[in-house]
Amino acid sequence: MKKTGENAVKAKRELARLGTSLKNEILRSCAKALCDNAEAIIEANKKDIENGIADNMPKSLQDRLKLTKERIEGMADGLEQIASLPDPIGEFISMKTLPNGLMVGQKRVPIGVIGIIYEARPNVTSDAFAICFKAGSAVILRGGKEAINSNKAVVKVLRSCIEENGLNPDFVQLIEDTSRQSATELMQLTGYVDVLIPRGGKGLIRSVVENSKVPVIETGAGNCHIYVDAEADIQKAIDITVNAKVQRPSVCNAAETLLVHKDIAKDFLPKVIKELKKSNVEIRGDETVASLADDVVPATEEDWITEYNDYILAVKVVNDIDETIDHIAKYSTGHSEAIVTKSYENSQKFLDLVDSAAVYVNASTRFTDGNEFGFGAEIGISTQKLHARGPMGLKELTSSKYVIYGNGQIRG
Amino acid sequence: MKKTGENAVKAKRELARLGTSLKNEILRSCAKALCDNAEAIIEANKKDIENGIADNMPKSLQDRLKLTKERIEGMADGLEQIASLPDPIGEFISMKTLPNGLMVGQKRVPIGVIGIIYEARPNVTSDAFAICFKAGSAVILRGGKEAINSNKAVVKVLRSCIEENGLNPDFVQLIEDTSRQSATELMQLTGYVDVLIPRGGKGLIRSVVENSKVPVIETGAGNCHIYVDAEADIQKAIDITVNAKVQRPSVCNAAETLLVHKDIAKDFLPKVIKELKKSNVEIRGDETVASLADDVVPATEEDWITEYNDYILAVKVVNDIDETIDHIAKYSTGHSEAIVTKSYENSQKFLDLVDSAAVYVNASTRFTDGNEFGFGAEIGISTQKLHARGPMGLKELTSSKYVIYGNGQIRG
Repeated sequence: MKKTGENAVKAKRELARLGTSLKNEILRSCAKALCDNAEAIIEANKKDIENGIADNMPKSLQDRLKLTKERIEGMADGLEQIASLPDPIGEFISMKTLPNGLMVGQKRVPIGVIGIIYEARPNVTSDAFAICFKAGSAVILRGGKEAINSNKAVVKVLRSCIEENGLNPDFVQLIEDTSRQSATELMQLTGYVDVLIPRGGKGLIRSVVENSKVPVIETGAGNCHIYVDAEADIQKAIDITVNAKVQRPSVCNAAETLLVHKDIAKDFLPKVIKELKKSNVEIRGDETVASLADDVVPATEEDWITEYNDYILAVKVVNDIDETIDHIAKYSTGHSEAIVTKSYENSQKFLDLVDSAAVYVNASTRFTDGNEFGFGAEIGISTQKLHARGPMGLKELTSSKYVIYGNGQIRG
Repeated sequence: MKKTGENAVKAKRELARLGTSLKNEILRSCAKALCDNAEAIIEANKKDIENGIADNMPKSLQDRLKLTKERIEGMADGLEQIASLPDPIGEFISMKTLPNGLMVGQKRVPIGVIGIIYEARPNVTSDAFAICFKAGSAVILRGGKEAINSNKAVVKVLRSCIEENGLNPDFVQLIEDTSRQSATELMQLTGYVDVLIPRGGKGLIRSVVENSKVPVIETGAGNCHIYVDAEADIQKAIDITVNAKVQRPSVCNAAETLLVHKDIAKDFLPKVIKELKKSNVEIRGDETVASLADDVVPATEEDWITEYNDYILAVKVVNDIDETIDHIAKYSTGHSEAIVTKSYENSQKFLDLVDSAAVYVNASTRFTDGNEFGFGAEIGISTQKLHARGPMGLKELTSSKYVIYGNGQIRG
């Protein structure tokens, strides 16, 4: 593992010197190489699928793991897309001249070495390489054992392609040992790895946050809330709630809890529940909710903290916006929350006092996403407050340094 | 300790709601309170000094610990100065309208709860409170045992003053237990403390970085380099080297190693060493250096990695700028480095390829400082790459969130 770290440190210095044009050329050449080698990658992927079947892997996971020619073309498109984005490296965030004549500029530079720990989706392998590479950082990938053969095949193609371009293949390294031990070792690689980003389920993220000595950017956990205020447009409230819950329930920006002001509950709740039932959403509600609709499962404390990622919605009737803000402060993971209201005052209050990465007025939480926000690509959604918060695009994967132009200044 | 964390979390929510005017009013009222209570603070400080003398505390440390009326007025001035700075909270970093009409703004918000672990200087107590408070965050202070009586007296004044203004005194809390155990407990306070900033010597910083589960911003360690290129203005090179070494050797932005191009060594080194000797600087050099000046202590590997913080300078003659860049990459702590050169090409190369928080052309490294850079105040100098790099002022002590204004948008 230390050797992997040393290789990455050597590679990061070479990578930091590559210009934008060369980086883009390599990304495009890797995209082509993935398509050219699709058969070999699919062959390797078949082994993973077979192992998955033998291990009774759920069908939904098998589907996420499976690579087809189309999916590999999708991975290649992802590389092309990142090649077409502006290079964040070299941008001057600010530049000013001090009274003593020193010109002080703050310039965007690569982080250096980024580690990614992830689970069963082999498309993350090429995506994570591409975004880290474009942001000027070497990447160490540690994927899950379920996808190890696919990951090896993909990384082999990427490394060969980089090498054929006369450059250091260690811009991307895969840890082939998928034991828990190898993840732990990567988390201890201070001095080599500058940041570790876990991508995957709650268990994985918790484990990395709690055990890593390398700085971590926490991503993903989303217990998102929709609050329907007393003065809400009922149709918009229905549309937003249904969209946030059922448009894609498995993702982190889907809604998990609906909070409804008591003055609108009687009018709104039966209608929204009727719509949600059309998509077979299970409603777990408090007593007031149960009194207004059929088939309401009584909600427990556990429901307010659960990220279902499923066709289940916790529903609570609240007395006012203050109770809503307190509820969110207590139970939210700080990902995305939305208020539906016609009240100017309450919209501002919600935006000001809800302390989450993305806070919405009259829109679905499903928009918290690097592509939706116009970043072009994302490596995940940060739910912590340091370094980056919300969707992380290329800029969020960079650091900065001060460059100072003098003409002999000394301090008096 | 958990109670302290809970109090801080409660306080942070109240603090986030304070407006700029009220924050400034409280800072000014705290400044006045410090002056009004100077006698009581000096009384408490005397106990610390007496304990220090009984424990054979070095005179230089006694001096740093000692509070006088003038020093307390200096602390009050610090509070006034932070009151006069622009409020970073509420600033919109960006605001754009997406094609679907959503207006997405990125707004600066408080981090929440900041922990500061520091050593013997009681002025840090009021400084750290003021900068965190202005940045909208509650602060938990854990100072060293040497200053505990002084710190208690200062925090008592600050808390009373906040309380007299009708607000929550837990905006600032002091951990009165100065055992190692209390520091360790603070480092485990995930979920309550958002970031921990160690201020002090290398040992303290290492210990916090290695043991904390709370995210840490690493500050301070400065093994800074001056490189005198073949084509350098000799007088500027002398002035810059002497200033960077002797103007204040005890601080992190002072130079510790001088690298000299072989083509200029014979001309430059005897002159600069003569100047340095006037300030009694000990020279630790390689063989070439020893051949060009008297009284050169032979440098060992240890000298290239040492931050002396003293009147000692390691000196090495190098073959070219590439050797310089490699040397810095190997031994630097990534704080501040300077090149002295007339060469445009080499100045750009040095700026591009030296990977430190602040990289200078033709100026002293002593300028790496929040006040010098025009930030008005600083909490330390980050030598890490995440969140903040270089001097950390008010902006670096904030987070951001996305606020999104919609009119019923749902995702298709």
